[in-house]
Amino acid sequence: MKNQAVNATRDRVTIRDVAQDAGVSVAAVSKVLRNAYGVSEVLRAKVEISIEKLNYRPSVAARAMRGRTQTVGVLVIELSNPFLAGVIEEANATLAESNFKALIGIGRSASSIEASMIESMIDNRMDGVLIIAPRISGKILELYARQIPIVVIAHHEPHAKTYDTVNSDDHGGAYLAVEAALQRGYRDIAMLSYDLGDSPPTIVALLREKGYLDGMKAEGLEGRIIRLPSVGADRRAAINDFLAMRDRPRAVFVWSDLDAVPLINAARMCGIRVPEDLAIIGYDNSPMAAIPLVGLTSVDQNAAALGRTAAETLLGRIDGREEARHLLIKPHVEMRGST
Amino acid sequence: MKNQAVNATRDRVTIRDVAQDAGVSVAAVSKVLRNAYGVSEVLRAKVEISIEKLNYRPSVAARAMRGRTQTVGVLVIELSNPFLAGVIEEANATLAESNFKALIGIGRSASSIEASMIESMIDNRMDGVLIIAPRISGKILELYARQIPIVVIAHHEPHAKTYDTVNSDDHGGAYLAVEAALQRGYRDIAMLSYDLGDSPPTIVALLREKGYLDGMKAEGLEGRIIRLPSVGADRRAAINDFLAMRDRPRAVFVWSDLDAVPLINAARMCGIRVPEDLAIIGYDNSPMAAIPLVGLTSVDQNAAALGRTAAETLLGRIDGREEARHLLIKPHVEMRGST
Repeated sequence: MKNQAVNATRDRVTIRDVAQDAGVSVAAVSKVLRNAYGVSEVLRAKVEISIEKLNYRPSVAARAMRGRTQTVGVLVIELSNPFLAGVIEEANATLAESNFKALIGIGRSASSIEASMIESMIDNRMDGVLIIAPRISGKILELYARQIPIVVIAHHEPHAKTYDTVNSDDHGGAYLAVEAALQRGYRDIAMLSYDLGDSPPTIVALLREKGYLDGMKAEGLEGRIIRLPSVGADRRAAINDFLAMRDRPRAVFVWSDLDAVPLINAARMCGIRVPEDLAIIGYDNSPMAAIPLVGLTSVDQNAAALGRTAAETLLGRIDGREEARHLLIKPHVEMRGST
Repeated sequence: MKNQAVNATRDRVTIRDVAQDAGVSVAAVSKVLRNAYGVSEVLRAKVEISIEKLNYRPSVAARAMRGRTQTVGVLVIELSNPFLAGVIEEANATLAESNFKALIGIGRSASSIEASMIESMIDNRMDGVLIIAPRISGKILELYARQIPIVVIAHHEPHAKTYDTVNSDDHGGAYLAVEAALQRGYRDIAMLSYDLGDSPPTIVALLREKGYLDGMKAEGLEGRIIRLPSVGADRRAAINDFLAMRDRPRAVFVWSDLDAVPLINAARMCGIRVPEDLAIIGYDNSPMAAIPLVGLTSVDQNAAALGRTAAETLLGRIDGREEARHLLIKPHVEMRGST
C-alpha cells in the first residue's frame, strides 16, 4: 500500500524511490539500469525487485533496456555564427570516431523551441544531448538532465550537479584582451557589449564584462562598458553612433566578432583609421576576422578544443559517469593589424 | 504458398508485391499507407487485405501506421560554408511554421557517411529528408526515396522520378556573371574552377562551367577554365600560382566565394589592384563577400528562397504528392567594387 501511495501522490516514481525501496544508493540503481560493469548479482536482484514492485519505468530505464541508438543530439542557438559551426564540426568528428552520429537542432534563441527540441531528442531515444549557448535556464536543464545525459557549451554554471559544462574561459579571455591592449600602449580602453536585459548570469557576455573590468582594475584603470542594443536588433545605427561619440575611446574591446567585424568595417569605410585612430579587439577569432583585408585582433576560444572536449565529456557521461564536470578551455589572443 | 515463396526468396516484401496481390497500382497502395485524402473504402480494404496476407511491414508502412513524427532530417555536406547555413536556417524556419522540427546531420563530403545518416533518419522515423549538396549518387538517392520523401538541393538531376530537386539555376548564374563582366568592358575573362575528378554530372560546378562557356560563346569569345586542386586540398599555393601567371586573365569568374574570397585577399595583399589589375566575380554572395573591406562582386543564389522552396517542396511530398518536381531558383549578380 505504501508503494501505491507513492504512485498516487507523484506524477512519476523516481530513481530515488527505487533506491530507498531497495535500500541502496541512487548511483547503485543507476549502475544497474545502465548495465554498468562490476554490478554484483545481489545488487542487481535487489534493484530489479524494487523496480518491478514500484513499476518504475522512466525513459532512462527504458533507454537502458532498449540499448543505445549511437545517436547524440546537438542543440545550437543558430548556424550562421561561423564560430559555432567550427565547434559543431569538431564535436561531430569526435563523436564519429566513437561511432556516434550527431543530429543537430536549431534553438533560434527561444527557450520554448529549445525545450521542444530537447524533448524531441529524448523522444527520438538519443543517447545524450550537447547544448550550445542555450537560452533555457539551468533549472530546466537540471530537469532534462535526469532524463538524458547533457553537456552544455557556452553556459557558465560551475555548480550544476546533474549535467556537465564545457566553456571557454570567457573571464580569462577578456582579461587577456585588456592585457594585449595595455601592452600595445593603450590605456583608454572601453568595452563594447550589448544590452543584457534580464539575461541569466550564465551567459558568456557577462563573464567577458567581468574579465574586462578585472583586467582594467588590475592596472588601476576604471572600466567603461558601452552597450549596443540587445541581441536580434539591428545594431548598425548604434555602431555608427559609437564611432561618432565625442569621447570615443582610443581602444575598444568588443564582446564578439559578430559586432567587431561590422565595427572595423564601418570605421574604415568612414575614414577612421584602425588602429591609428581606434584600436579594435574582437572575440571569437571568426573566419571573417582572419581575412587579411579585415585583419582583426581577436580572442580565440579554440573552437576545435571546445567541440572535441564537449563531445568527449558527453561520451563519458553516456558511459556512466555520474559526478558533474565543469571544464574551462584556455583562450589566447590572435594579434592582427587592428591593434 | 505463393506468398510464402515470395517471403522465402526475398529479404522483404515490397510495395510492388502488395500492389500486384491487390490488383492495384503502387501509387494506390502508397495512398492507402499514407492515409491520403480521397482513398475509397473499397481500395483501402483491398490493400489492407493484401498487406495482412503478405505480412508487409516496411518502415514506410510502419511510419504511416504510427503517424507522423513531425520531424524532418536535413543532411548537409558541411556547416562551415556560411551560404549553406543560410539555406538551412530558412528551411528550418519554414518547417517550423508547419510545426515540423528539423534535425541536421553532416555528411562530411563522404557518400558512406551520407548513406549512414539517411538510414539513421529513416530509422528515427523522420517524415522526410532534405539533402544539400550530396556526394551520394542519384541512383542511391532513388533507392532511399522509396523509403522516405526526399528533396535535394544543389544536385542537378532534372529527370529523377522518385525525389524532387530544388536548385539555384547554376548555368544561368554563371551566364549572368559573364554578362556582368562583359558589361564592365572586360573581354579576357577566365573561369577559376577546380579539379572535378570523377565528380558526377549533377554537381553545381559543372553547371557553372557550362554557363560560363555558353556566356563567352554567345559573345563570340573562347572560354578558358583554370583549375585549382580538388575539394579538400589546400588551395593557397594554387591561388598564388594563378596570380603569378604570365598570361593571367584581365577578369576572372570564380566558381565559389570559398575560393574567390581568398583570391581577392591574396591579390590585394601582394599589390595586385582589384579591379584595376584583375577583376573578380565570385559565386554565393557569402557574408564575407559582402564585407565592405572585401567588396566582392558575387552571384547571389538567394539562399533564403532555396531553403524556403525546398522545405515547402518536401512538405508537399510528405503530404502525398507523387510526381517529381524539379525547380530552379533565379540567381542575380550582386555588383561590388571588385569588378
